Amino acid sequence: MNSKIIGLDIGGANTKLASSDGRIVELHYLPLWKNTRLPEVLKEIAKRLKPEEVAVVMTGELADCFEDKEQGIRFIKETVDSAFGSEKVSYINSQGRFQSEADSLRELAAANWAASARLIGEEVGDCIFVDVGSTTSDIIPIISGEHRAGLTDFERLLKSELVYAGTLRTNLAALLEKVKLEKGACRTSSELFATTADAYLILGKIEEAKYTCETADGAGRSRIEAMRRIARLVCADLSEVGEREIYEIAEQIKEKQVSTLAEAIFEVAERNGLNRIVSAGLGEFLIQEAAKRLGFECISVSGRWGEEISKVFPAYAAARLLAAEKSGN
Amino acid sequence: MNSKIIGLDIGGANTKLASSDGRIVELHYLPLWKNTRLPEVLKEIAKRLKPEEVAVVMTGELADCFEDKEQGIRFIKETVDSAFGSEKVSYINSQGRFQSEADSLRELAAANWAASARLIGEEVGDCIFVDVGSTTSDIIPIISGEHRAGLTDFERLLKSELVYAGTLRTNLAALLEKVKLEKGACRTSSELFATTADAYLILGKIEEAKYTCETADGAGRSRIEAMRRIARLVCADLSEVGEREIYEIAEQIKEKQVSTLAEAIFEVAERNGLNRIVSAGLGEFLIQEAAKRLGFECISVSGRWGEEISKVFPAYAAARLLAAEKSGN
Repeated sequence: MNSKIIGLDIGGANTKLASSDGRIVELHYLPLWKNTRLPEVLKEIAKRLKPEEVAVVMTGELADCFEDKEQGIRFIKETVDSAFGSEKVSYINSQGRFQSEADSLRELAAANWAASARLIGEEVGDCIFVDVGSTTSDIIPIISGEHRAGLTDFERLLKSELVYAGTLRTNLAALLEKVKLEKGACRTSSELFATTADAYLILGKIEEAKYTCETADGAGRSRIEAMRRIARLVCADLSEVGEREIYEIAEQIKEKQVSTLAEAIFEVAERNGLNRIVSAGLGEFLIQEAAKRLGFECISVSGRWGEEISKVFPAYAAARLLAAEKSGN
Repeated sequence: MNSKIIGLDIGGANTKLASSDGRIVELHYLPLWKNTRLPEVLKEIAKRLKPEEVAVVMTGELADCFEDKEQGIRFIKETVDSAFGSEKVSYINSQGRFQSEADSLRELAAANWAASARLIGEEVGDCIFVDVGSTTSDIIPIISGEHRAGLTDFERLLKSELVYAGTLRTNLAALLEKVKLEKGACRTSSELFATTADAYLILGKIEEAKYTCETADGAGRSRIEAMRRIARLVCADLSEVGEREIYEIAEQIKEKQVSTLAEAIFEVAERNGLNRIVSAGLGEFLIQEAAKRLGFECISVSGRWGEEISKVFPAYAAARLLAAEKSGN
């Protein structure tokens, strides 16, 4: 293993990077839907790290700047190929395999979790691999080294293998229609007034430095600014709702996310006869709570590979799979 | 009554205008949260219509470009005063009364429905006034000419007198956590991929010309573009979900909005001993369906004053209240 093989995970909001030896870990906030700096940043990475080989997984093709997924895949592929030179780049498809000439472009869609699943299958064995990131939660059944998940995001949403909620970017309005307050149940506003990053900052689950996405109102990431955004969820400002109520709203967001996650994991577990979880991502704290409720064993990727790698696990897995391929394993 | 008295309803996304004789009706899409053109447009209106008197109601102070509501109210007030000359402008507060020197600025917050309620109380009598606009739904109990609603958006959310959903701008992800498809229940994406305008365009409830807000992806307002956006709600594109399924998703959005509205109206009706509805706004079709389910009589503002006035009813009510005040009624 060495630092000359790197993996890239190109999402709609974030691009993640890891080397196969785990020494290099980077997270770049590069939203694709607005004048993305992806091309410049990838060129800068190519120049700075001079990788010999690059393994790529993606989910960014769903960004609504693209008319359809194929257009998105093509854009991402051209951008990466031109930054590193296409001869150095290998793509991993939704089966977790390297793309061959014969494969269709479409199989590259939403494949970042497939790389993770391959590595977990080899290293840990049968389990449900759960990766809760900034935006989404992947819930992937792995049996005999192969994942048994749907091959598109749409199929996975149908099977509860994808829950579209994460620890940073999720609009609180998409999670709770009502919140319970001292004065009674209160309906919420459907605007994008606050996100899960605000709730988890308030609860001390993420630090300000880990709040690596834009804020809903473009203001800062301090505790008081996060509180102001959460107050707006009930159309109030800080003269109308107190700190304790804001904290209670944040707790209810967490409770909703844990219970949805537990429900989805249970569904995947039942269907596949599995009861062991491997957790990864920014949101490992949510997965561990869900696992506890279900009474399932939970192996933490942070515990095994370190917290930094847990947050960029698909990129790390891609790099590791490519390193194994190159060494003939 | 004449065209020289106009009413303005300044919301976060739209500014509406009507003259007290109902001859002038205008709707301007002027979002406050991004380099708003409100000052220029109001100056242009002052120059073009040369009103003698202007009555103002607002809700735009909640926009998240403002640190708190007072800052928002102050901005709106200064903008209007400077466009028309402060001696010509009267503000209506959340009791539906014109603001006097002694009143606090804060009472001007979220008062557009209070003007409507005053006029409806005088013209129709005891009822629940329901106004479903582009963004929100107001559910206002009126008894003996006075509204009995909470005075802030926060209080009204607590009492189901405000449901934060409308016919154009509402994120579909805030309405449905899952949709029923032929293949089974499917989780939805929590991004802002599609709005209620897309659903009601597909269902033929609003025409393309009435789609007076931005689209979620910045693309056009055609049927095919709306379908593409709705497909993204389940992370699919049009090669993965068919027209019939898109139509079914749109139907489920409508069903959810009608049932939430009916639930909220019922709550307000029970608390106030009322069983007659007066409906206004872009979403009168939703209110009529909710009324039917509840078995309540429903008087349509469109039917009585015309469809154009129904859509700008708070602005019209403000102008009418000012005209009555001036004629000593």
